[in-house]
Amino acid sequence: MNNSMIVFILGQIIRLEGLLMIIPCLTSLIYQEHEIFAFLIVIISCLVIGTLMTLRKPANQTIYLKEGCVATAFSWILLSIFGCMPFVISGEIPSFTNALFETISGFTTTGASILSDVESMSHGMMLWRCFTHWIGGMGVLVFLLAIIPMNSASGSNMNLMKAESPGPQVDKLVPKVQSTAKILYGIYLALTVLELLFLLAGRMPLFEALLTSFGTAGTGGFGFRNDSFGSFSPYIQWVVTVFMILFGVNFNVYFLLLLRRFRRAASSEEVRAYFAIILAAVAVITVNIRSLYGTFGEALRHAAFQVGSIITTTGFSSCDFDLWPTLAKEVLVLLMFVGACAGSTGGGIKVSRFLLMGKTLGKELKQALHPQVVAPVRMDGKLVNHETIRTTNVFLAAYIFIFAASFMLVSLDGFDMVTNFTSVAATLNNIGPGLNQVGPMMNFGAYSNFAKLVLIFDMLAGRLEIFPMLVLFMPDTWRRF
Amino acid sequence: MNNSMIVFILGQIIRLEGLLMIIPCLTSLIYQEHEIFAFLIVIISCLVIGTLMTLRKPANQTIYLKEGCVATAFSWILLSIFGCMPFVISGEIPSFTNALFETISGFTTTGASILSDVESMSHGMMLWRCFTHWIGGMGVLVFLLAIIPMNSASGSNMNLMKAESPGPQVDKLVPKVQSTAKILYGIYLALTVLELLFLLAGRMPLFEALLTSFGTAGTGGFGFRNDSFGSFSPYIQWVVTVFMILFGVNFNVYFLLLLRRFRRAASSEEVRAYFAIILAAVAVITVNIRSLYGTFGEALRHAAFQVGSIITTTGFSSCDFDLWPTLAKEVLVLLMFVGACAGSTGGGIKVSRFLLMGKTLGKELKQALHPQVVAPVRMDGKLVNHETIRTTNVFLAAYIFIFAASFMLVSLDGFDMVTNFTSVAATLNNIGPGLNQVGPMMNFGAYSNFAKLVLIFDMLAGRLEIFPMLVLFMPDTWRRF
Repeated sequence: MNNSMIVFILGQIIRLEGLLMIIPCLTSLIYQEHEIFAFLIVIISCLVIGTLMTLRKPANQTIYLKEGCVATAFSWILLSIFGCMPFVISGEIPSFTNALFETISGFTTTGASILSDVESMSHGMMLWRCFTHWIGGMGVLVFLLAIIPMNSASGSNMNLMKAESPGPQVDKLVPKVQSTAKILYGIYLALTVLELLFLLAGRMPLFEALLTSFGTAGTGGFGFRNDSFGSFSPYIQWVVTVFMILFGVNFNVYFLLLLRRFRRAASSEEVRAYFAIILAAVAVITVNIRSLYGTFGEALRHAAFQVGSIITTTGFSSCDFDLWPTLAKEVLVLLMFVGACAGSTGGGIKVSRFLLMGKTLGKELKQALHPQVVAPVRMDGKLVNHETIRTTNVFLAAYIFIFAASFMLVSLDGFDMVTNFTSVAATLNNIGPGLNQVGPMMNFGAYSNFAKLVLIFDMLAGRLEIFPMLVLFMPDTWRRF
Repeated sequence: MNNSMIVFILGQIIRLEGLLMIIPCLTSLIYQEHEIFAFLIVIISCLVIGTLMTLRKPANQTIYLKEGCVATAFSWILLSIFGCMPFVISGEIPSFTNALFETISGFTTTGASILSDVESMSHGMMLWRCFTHWIGGMGVLVFLLAIIPMNSASGSNMNLMKAESPGPQVDKLVPKVQSTAKILYGIYLALTVLELLFLLAGRMPLFEALLTSFGTAGTGGFGFRNDSFGSFSPYIQWVVTVFMILFGVNFNVYFLLLLRRFRRAASSEEVRAYFAIILAAVAVITVNIRSLYGTFGEALRHAAFQVGSIITTTGFSSCDFDLWPTLAKEVLVLLMFVGACAGSTGGGIKVSRFLLMGKTLGKELKQALHPQVVAPVRMDGKLVNHETIRTTNVFLAAYIFIFAASFMLVSLDGFDMVTNFTSVAATLNNIGPGLNQVGPMMNFGAYSNFAKLVLIFDMLAGRLEIFPMLVLFMPDTWRRF
């Protein structure tokens, strides 16, 4: 294992976090809040520790997939430990476990909160809390790759990107990994700014518009009002709905649009399936909840908002959907697992994995009926290679095992089964709210510290798509050869 | 498609059912119940229709996997339609949908009931109801293969057996399929008689001992008292516990025991995993429910009974486990999915499939860390071929899609989510009772006819392990070439 390279990467990450924290620190300065000192302490610590760790540039910069996984997992853990310090030091979230839960929930873009009264938070802390969504959304190692020139020998950068990026396969948009990372972040930033402008046009105050844009872009979902988006105007709710859905689209499609290859962009099977699922779910829910609301338009708006919020795993809410009829709630629960497109900022199992599963199923049935016919699996006209199908299946197996184990472990707290099931579903899929005790108007504060640690693991496993977290627990990883 | 051969097989099945129905008919005669006429009408119809369908023996007796699937699916559907007629004609279950639900629940060894008061049923009908479990347990086509000499050219018999038998792969115990079927039924009958003797030794009346043995052997689970096994003695409950668990073991192991190959029998990885899961689940539940019962022994007995009942997908109950704490209930819900061993009479996803999933996951992780090492998947020391792993994955995909669709469709009735989730889990895994509205002391009678049809499909799909049912819905199956 290339330990010195891992230490070097971790140092870069910590230093980067120190720099990013200057933004909430300035916010505290503007609003003249004394939380500024908590930020300053952490910023200085990050810069000092990060610089010490990066003093010596390793001679051997090669990163195999193993190192990529370990570096990614530790990056996210360290990021969260340093990231939760301002909350602890300032006393806004005094318990370390709670602060860590909230920060990991932020970076992994889950949006599950342990806070019962978010409105009492200071501006600086609130900005940091929502900014973590934006940082985690596109990936922090991808950010590092975009801004710091690294030795790209023997696919090292690709191994870092593979370990952090969601979806069954990672496409390089352009031959160089670093350029790909830059393009992704460019699109990400542009869309975020666009949403900000739309929100400002709806007379949302700048500060709230920023928080909303960060949460939508990262598909995070931290609310800054106790009723999330319930008290905002229909215009704002529609803007957020549209942008949530846009951030759940595979970013490759935006790249194709930039290149004016509209036809290829429109023919992406995953994106078509994604929109088809959204339309179907909105239609079913609108009909199902119609009688609860005054007008058809209102029912449609709440249905679209909630479907967009859950399938992209954002987790905002425009109303208390825990009060909806069973069918509508079950559609939302199923959408929790579907998740957004691969290569987006959304979580969940991903539409493309379900597409692959469906196609493989169809192929096997056809082959059983006509043993003489060879029917390969194709996606977007291209043959899907055997390894992608295999890793998709293995991902699903790991997902099921982790889900079952977490479901049992959190049940030790004695909550009801729907609470336990949806709390695991909401964290492992990086959504945020579940149902019952963890419903949209409730929070995760009532769980024990042990259950919170289990859910913290689930959030990390969900964001990093399991493998990097499992690699940490394999004895083989730590054995010397 | 070899239509004449399918008609011939269906005719044989119907005639066989007419013959088997003589047993409950005689029971009615003994107890001098007027339900005897309902049986006579159906028996005569079965024999006449069955004989007409088998008059002409087809020249071409070849059965490909496609015909095997179609014949199997239709066999089970026809068997259930004729099988529910005595209930309808006698008026004991006047609604056709309800009678069909009850009969399919019987043949598929689910044990989910629509009856709220089973104790008012006549003896003849009660025997028929529980006898369907025994018939369905080991498979009706397997029975046909065991008793009727058929042309065994080009693997035709194997294709029938493959379509009906549970598990990721079907092993022939001896080279001839017909001899394998005979051995399986011999072991099945012997174990049933053994249980009967143990129950009689515990002073259970003969009639009730017969019903219990049928239900245990087929891992069916129809109760004949309104509280299932709650009012029986601890001895009877322990006997049933042990035999439920024994009928969940892969029958190949019993064959190896008969051959005195004890070492190979004891080394079966699936059976070891099956017992390990049972021990772990019993231990966790006993500790969790200890405070609800007077003595440790009582808690252990109820835990063992319920774990044995759920993992083997029998569905008997010794107490109302819906009142247990959440952890115990969640362990039972997870066991619902695990199911028994392949090649047993139990349902569910099967222990061997989870073993395969776990082994594939371990292999992929290892291979990702050491790309140069080749680590094949082995089971019982033998290499698992690639096709078995592929069909296991495809099975899982189909299972998830059917589960999700059923979960949404039954939710139209407006019951709560735990009821809907466990009703689908209990039917698709052929268990019987779920939780809440379909808990062990409740029944499925409150669901609408539409929901009952969905659950009927799930029971058939669960028993036939999905593929034969899906093949019916493929346009390719019905196209002429």
